[in-house]
Amino acid sequence: MLSKIDLSLTISKDEYKREFKQLGLELGELQREMKDLKIPVAVIFEGWNAAGKGTMLNRVLQSMDARGFNVQNIKAVLNEDEYYRPFLWRFWRKLPEQGKTTFFDRSWYRRVTNERIDQLVGEWTTAYNEINNFEKLQTDGGMVLIKLFLHISKKTQKKRFEEIQKNTSETWRVTEEDWRHHRQYDDYVRVYDEMFAKTDTQHAQWTIVEAEDDRFATIKIFRTLINTFKRRIEQEKQRLVNMPTKDAGITTTNVASMVDRMNLTLDISKDDYKKEMRELQTKLREYQHELFTKRVPVVVAFEGWDAAGKGGVIKRLCENLDPRGYDVNPVAAPNDVEKAHHYLWRFWQPFPKAGHIAVFDRTWYGRVMVERIEGYCSEAEWRRAYSEINDMELQWSTFGTIVFKFWMQIDKDEQLRRFRAREIDVYKMAKITDEDWRNREKWDSYKIALDEMIVRTDTGYAPWTLVEANSKLFARIKVLRTMVERFKQLL
Amino acid sequence: MLSKIDLSLTISKDEYKREFKQLGLELGELQREMKDLKIPVAVIFEGWNAAGKGTMLNRVLQSMDARGFNVQNIKAVLNEDEYYRPFLWRFWRKLPEQGKTTFFDRSWYRRVTNERIDQLVGEWTTAYNEINNFEKLQTDGGMVLIKLFLHISKKTQKKRFEEIQKNTSETWRVTEEDWRHHRQYDDYVRVYDEMFAKTDTQHAQWTIVEAEDDRFATIKIFRTLINTFKRRIEQEKQRLVNMPTKDAGITTTNVASMVDRMNLTLDISKDDYKKEMRELQTKLREYQHELFTKRVPVVVAFEGWDAAGKGGVIKRLCENLDPRGYDVNPVAAPNDVEKAHHYLWRFWQPFPKAGHIAVFDRTWYGRVMVERIEGYCSEAEWRRAYSEINDMELQWSTFGTIVFKFWMQIDKDEQLRRFRAREIDVYKMAKITDEDWRNREKWDSYKIALDEMIVRTDTGYAPWTLVEANSKLFARIKVLRTMVERFKQLL
Repeated sequence: MLSKIDLSLTISKDEYKREFKQLGLELGELQREMKDLKIPVAVIFEGWNAAGKGTMLNRVLQSMDARGFNVQNIKAVLNEDEYYRPFLWRFWRKLPEQGKTTFFDRSWYRRVTNERIDQLVGEWTTAYNEINNFEKLQTDGGMVLIKLFLHISKKTQKKRFEEIQKNTSETWRVTEEDWRHHRQYDDYVRVYDEMFAKTDTQHAQWTIVEAEDDRFATIKIFRTLINTFKRRIEQEKQRLVNMPTKDAGITTTNVASMVDRMNLTLDISKDDYKKEMRELQTKLREYQHELFTKRVPVVVAFEGWDAAGKGGVIKRLCENLDPRGYDVNPVAAPNDVEKAHHYLWRFWQPFPKAGHIAVFDRTWYGRVMVERIEGYCSEAEWRRAYSEINDMELQWSTFGTIVFKFWMQIDKDEQLRRFRAREIDVYKMAKITDEDWRNREKWDSYKIALDEMIVRTDTGYAPWTLVEANSKLFARIKVLRTMVERFKQLL
Repeated sequence: MLSKIDLSLTISKDEYKREFKQLGLELGELQREMKDLKIPVAVIFEGWNAAGKGTMLNRVLQSMDARGFNVQNIKAVLNEDEYYRPFLWRFWRKLPEQGKTTFFDRSWYRRVTNERIDQLVGEWTTAYNEINNFEKLQTDGGMVLIKLFLHISKKTQKKRFEEIQKNTSETWRVTEEDWRHHRQYDDYVRVYDEMFAKTDTQHAQWTIVEAEDDRFATIKIFRTLINTFKRRIEQEKQRLVNMPTKDAGITTTNVASMVDRMNLTLDISKDDYKKEMRELQTKLREYQHELFTKRVPVVVAFEGWDAAGKGGVIKRLCENLDPRGYDVNPVAAPNDVEKAHHYLWRFWQPFPKAGHIAVFDRTWYGRVMVERIEGYCSEAEWRRAYSEINDMELQWSTFGTIVFKFWMQIDKDEQLRRFRAREIDVYKMAKITDEDWRNREKWDSYKIALDEMIVRTDTGYAPWTLVEANSKLFARIKVLRTMVERFKQLL
């Protein structure tokens, strides 16, 4: 691909001056419109060293309102926080919120291409898949993603390196590493061609920028941004006009669900419970230490009916753990900042450092349960969510994460008993709200959503465990035992 | 102080069992009340190694709702992000939001005491001052701060180390470092006594916990938490009842202000502007590189009347800088997350890594300007803010930060001209809102607040520069020239 690019394209100084001013004004205006429409934008600058990424970037920034963008410089070396987390974690943290623009000077492609060159092939096919899924997820979520590749010839690169080195105050800018990469120019051409082939997708196309003439390159970049913004603004306005009316929810009569087949009479005696709980907690503590030394991250996700006993299980699970090694993340309605990001964004933030445990009290499955049922997202959105969630869990698992997902099942009568008990217990009164009663009325809708969720997201790498929870004691033992057994098998 | 503590205190097993259960229930209930009242809590566990910090912490956590707390383990070694920022930066990032509790396993005292022992005396007096100001600021802001010190004798410590080492699966827990500290026990006693003397303040007292008997220690910690929570809840309820009516704002007739004495006719020709701007931008770029190699952080704060030209100055300031080395932080009304923290919290987050530049478009001075005038905070709060802000800037400066503060001054007529011009310019329409017109009506109130702000916060380490901005060109040159001259002097 790169060898076919015509690098002789230029533009005259006069034309450039005229165009630059006009395009700059237009870009600034479009940025304001994008902001009003709350569209997030990510622009990535990839390309050869000395192709002029910094210069181009600066020219673009000049036209934009500095309060609406930030620049992320992606280094080759990972810091400790990044090193101990899945590949894309650090990019999730740097993504723009709605209405803002993030410019990436190098991006998630940096590590992959470097590793290809150095023949660290172990992970790269996975990495391209993860990247494609990541980009699709972001653009499906409303983000504009512009991928620029600044191209110059090997000869030009050499000339520019030499010029920089002649300038004594800038000599430091060209390193030994740069010269090594220069000598590998042809290898990189192959790697970049492969990168384009694998990641030039419909939702996130590459734009190759002929960068031998910096004026030509600048104008091309401006035009690319302007055209993309215009198209997106048009689309967004259309979408707002055609906004579908809210889903009326799932209407249904009584349905047979897989959870109806669960044996909710399962129980355990108080004595057995005490004994076994002590043993399981001790083992969990030992495994926690093993997880830490082996640097295995663990995610424990709890879903279930209101009053199914999630809080009680979490308490027993953590009771004997080293508090420095786990975090419990309660998931409530999203706040301002979370709302201004992709719905999965807030679950990436607390991803545990390798060796640590992150417990989620309610999870990303809210998208296909409460958000589906209450019509907080469109049908297209929750339908897409199953594969988005599967992808996310696959990334975690590929990184070595042990993922537990527990569904806490009680029947409708048991829920009623617990609601009533909460209403009269001074210590538990706070735990029962009108919303709980409202949710209860939608029991059958939840069952349908639940069945679909389990079927579509029960994967080998992140299986669901259905927990019979009419007996709180039985449920607690089952959860802890499931964890201990899986640790035994996997560690 | 430590030598006076009676370490023979114990409690019987039966009494412990009875108390533990009752106190646990009470603590859980109080946690819920604290949450409803939106009170943030920080509990720090300091003390000797092997004094049982982990065990005690775990027992406390058992009584609490895991969704309402998190645990921060403070290591002795700083990561890169922390190393290149002022001492307290990393603690600002870990503070609880309203209604949540953060437990610190070791805290901001760790580094200071270690450095005292190792005779790195350079910074420690400063550090205790910074800590006292920090704690006062947090508690004044509504946080409950509980400081626990778990005390055991040298003999007991030795016994416990030996016991741990006998247990083969836990041998790793006692390190060479621990034994070294053990040998320095008496030195540490002196350092700790000094720490208590310097930081046992009215707003943040130390509680020494006699920890030879872990049951006694547990009950004492529970009681300390419970009593503190109860007192605070009582206080908070009182406060809500006695909430002062909103300040009606500053009423005033025309006043002579120091900004009235500024010569706003100052101007510069377009040709001179162009020439000088080019020179200044080039120099700034060179200084940016020098800042980076010398690892000097820079904060540039812009305040001024609406339409005074802050955006335009920031644009010229950044135009020629390396975009990887600066960030522009627009400051608007706080979002949910920011509202749930101390008002200075959101200005600590983007503090620049040493070598980088952080530009603020509007700043922490909002507290003593718009928040004062609109009655968003109480009189006590904005009066306290001057010294809180001075302290913050002093900390930054002590760390080596160069702090610029620019007030952009235009007169009322010039503002009117600019508002009108914005209303008819298609590219600038978005920049003028009803709020701007409303703020304009309060011009005189703002002048009073402004004078007071300048007088109270114009310090040697973080001086105000008043910028005559009726001429945009003159203002831009003055800002950039001020920066270049200060860099020349300080770098």
